[in-house]
Amino acid sequence: MKMKDDILNLARRAKDASHSLSRLSSMTKNKVLIRMAEGILQNAPSLKRENERDLRAAREKGLSKALIDRLTLSDKVINTMASGIQEVAALPDPVGEVVRMWKRPNDLLVGKVRIPLGVITIIYESRPNVTADAACLCLKSGNAVILRGGSEAFHSNQAIAEILRKALAEEGITPDAIQMLSTPEREAVYELLELEDYIDLVIPRGGEELIRAVAKNSRIPVIKHYKGVCHIFVDESADFSMAERIIINAKVQRPGVCNALETLLIHKAIAKDFLPRIVRALEENGVEIRGCPGVRDLIPRLREAQDKDWHEEYLDLILSVKIIAGVEEAIGHITAYGSSHTESIITSSYQNAQRFLKEVNSSVVLVNASTRFNDGNQLGLGAEIGISTTKLHAFGPMGLEELTTCKFIVYGEGQIREL
Amino acid sequence: MKMKDDILNLARRAKDASHSLSRLSSMTKNKVLIRMAEGILQNAPSLKRENERDLRAAREKGLSKALIDRLTLSDKVINTMASGIQEVAALPDPVGEVVRMWKRPNDLLVGKVRIPLGVITIIYESRPNVTADAACLCLKSGNAVILRGGSEAFHSNQAIAEILRKALAEEGITPDAIQMLSTPEREAVYELLELEDYIDLVIPRGGEELIRAVAKNSRIPVIKHYKGVCHIFVDESADFSMAERIIINAKVQRPGVCNALETLLIHKAIAKDFLPRIVRALEENGVEIRGCPGVRDLIPRLREAQDKDWHEEYLDLILSVKIIAGVEEAIGHITAYGSSHTESIITSSYQNAQRFLKEVNSSVVLVNASTRFNDGNQLGLGAEIGISTTKLHAFGPMGLEELTTCKFIVYGEGQIREL
Repeated sequence: MKMKDDILNLARRAKDASHSLSRLSSMTKNKVLIRMAEGILQNAPSLKRENERDLRAAREKGLSKALIDRLTLSDKVINTMASGIQEVAALPDPVGEVVRMWKRPNDLLVGKVRIPLGVITIIYESRPNVTADAACLCLKSGNAVILRGGSEAFHSNQAIAEILRKALAEEGITPDAIQMLSTPEREAVYELLELEDYIDLVIPRGGEELIRAVAKNSRIPVIKHYKGVCHIFVDESADFSMAERIIINAKVQRPGVCNALETLLIHKAIAKDFLPRIVRALEENGVEIRGCPGVRDLIPRLREAQDKDWHEEYLDLILSVKIIAGVEEAIGHITAYGSSHTESIITSSYQNAQRFLKEVNSSVVLVNASTRFNDGNQLGLGAEIGISTTKLHAFGPMGLEELTTCKFIVYGEGQIREL
Repeated sequence: MKMKDDILNLARRAKDASHSLSRLSSMTKNKVLIRMAEGILQNAPSLKRENERDLRAAREKGLSKALIDRLTLSDKVINTMASGIQEVAALPDPVGEVVRMWKRPNDLLVGKVRIPLGVITIIYESRPNVTADAACLCLKSGNAVILRGGSEAFHSNQAIAEILRKALAEEGITPDAIQMLSTPEREAVYELLELEDYIDLVIPRGGEELIRAVAKNSRIPVIKHYKGVCHIFVDESADFSMAERIIINAKVQRPGVCNALETLLIHKAIAKDFLPRIVRALEENGVEIRGCPGVRDLIPRLREAQDKDWHEEYLDLILSVKIIAGVEEAIGHITAYGSSHTESIITSSYQNAQRFLKEVNSSVVLVNASTRFNDGNQLGLGAEIGISTTKLHAFGPMGLEELTTCKFIVYGEGQIREL
């Protein structure tokens, strides 16, 4: 009962804060952000002390080296966090933008204007720098935020949030605009997910299990980022060296991320020439290949792909490869097995490029470019708060604009409705 | 088990249909729509026969006259339904529109393109003409639709859907694009609301109870239209005759709809002069008034407003009236008691007009115009499929555009990602 009341109170304070936040000028928001970046840099020693408490606990629990790396606030991570905040300050403010304005036959002047969503809850896992990134994007877009980080980063997250809240208070803004849910019980999150009258959006950032659990238990709208089973289709007319460069980049540069390549489709007319070349290049980069029967006819020593391989997000140096009849079959395979994340065609055919762009309805569809470009920064949205693979509200990388909605405004001169 | 399989099959067929629908040209969609309108007109006699079966059952059950009115497919309703479809055919097709296109420093050309959402489920109550309206808006925006009408309109809805499906088939389009969920059990709806892999959006249209039940039970995103507690604030500098004309229009023209006026706020400096005048005009139009203590000081015979009156959507000839200190208190009252639907200020003050437009974050905010303009047709969006009072994806009247989302397309020349 006590916890339930605490959570309700926290959400109410966030809602109250959101009303004043929505009215802040861009100048004020930018001033606070600059102050936050300074606060992070000035408090680096105490941040590292708090981080050390989390790291000690993580080592005692025997967490993996990869997890401990993600948890560590090194000087480099702290500097990147501060410069990330400065970059958000430099981005244009989406709030108040008049997206469009038009006149009606009765002379009403009607416009659509961007406004903040209100209160956003972000639920995330180990990296403590997400605390600063997410809070600053919410502030810049005029939203109050309730943060819920992973328990393994508890002390680091609290320390970062306190620096951000102090900067708010110093500029005369209520620190309720950035709140950290600190009760350790998982029940607390479920309580929060019930409060649809106070919270407008939930963004889970982390593994598929976390996202599914949040989506299942939330009464509040959730923006979901499920897996990225990304495809590249090498068409008959592809430039082989371009195809090789793009495939190696998409698969090898950072195999553990959602926009990395997972399935390669090759046109049957070029398989005999292109397959040995790309297999060699991939294997030189340590990639394990799982092929369809057509692939294994040409290179029998390769491992056979099972049906589940076509659904798989490896997040590792593994690639499934299939030989297909052409662009139509490529689109069919992507529709059947893809996850609506990112797909690219390598081609010199105008018709096939246009057809692929038109008929593949993934969040990012590319011609002659790496799937690794599905990223808010790379596509020019500025910092990103996540990538949505469902179509409601946002689809693909989400920047500041995606943390807003539009209201209609109407300038009248006494008009009334006739019918 | 049988039902569960049937529902899953229906949703799967809708998903399959959605892929081909998303690729239809505007010309083909418009041809089908024109054929549908003709089909409705040509089959008027059989539509009325099927409707008579529903009406007979309704009379036997003793449904209210208002409900029976809404259920009746008169010649007039049938003609309006057909011309509504023709109007949808005449609207611009949102699918394929390139909303924006920009170039990145590495010469990637990036664009945002509108695509359909996929499969939309619409759950609605008694009016059978919603069957045609909703199905045609979904078709025009390239979406497959699963319709679930009220049981009291069962035969009418089936007959309308059959005409629409026949038109699809005659143009070589799979009739799975428009499906009617005809199992009478309420359980069938709950099954449907679980199928997030096949259905992209649920729109409930009807009373608050229906909407809350759908929102509570859905794993699929829901666009909600909760109540409309709409306000007009008459500022100190308002033109009295303009204020009177707008208030009477907003309250009286159609009191049973969501954009009708429910609470009137009057600046205290003009209350003594304006209140008697507007009370007289309202009472002449049959409106019952519930006033705050300040109102009753001036006109003691008026009924007293209780706290719950400020939250109430009367949908009837009743109006709550409050005297307040100025624009700041008006905005505060609307923030505390409003439902984010529609609010209007009547004023001659430039500053107060701009402040009201900026600080009131309802879906439609007006200056010197009737709240009744919160409507897709009136604001120039063409036909509307509903009004959203929550901020995700759409806020305010939803036209064809709101039944789409945007994907990113990228024209490259071999670019790979450096970092």
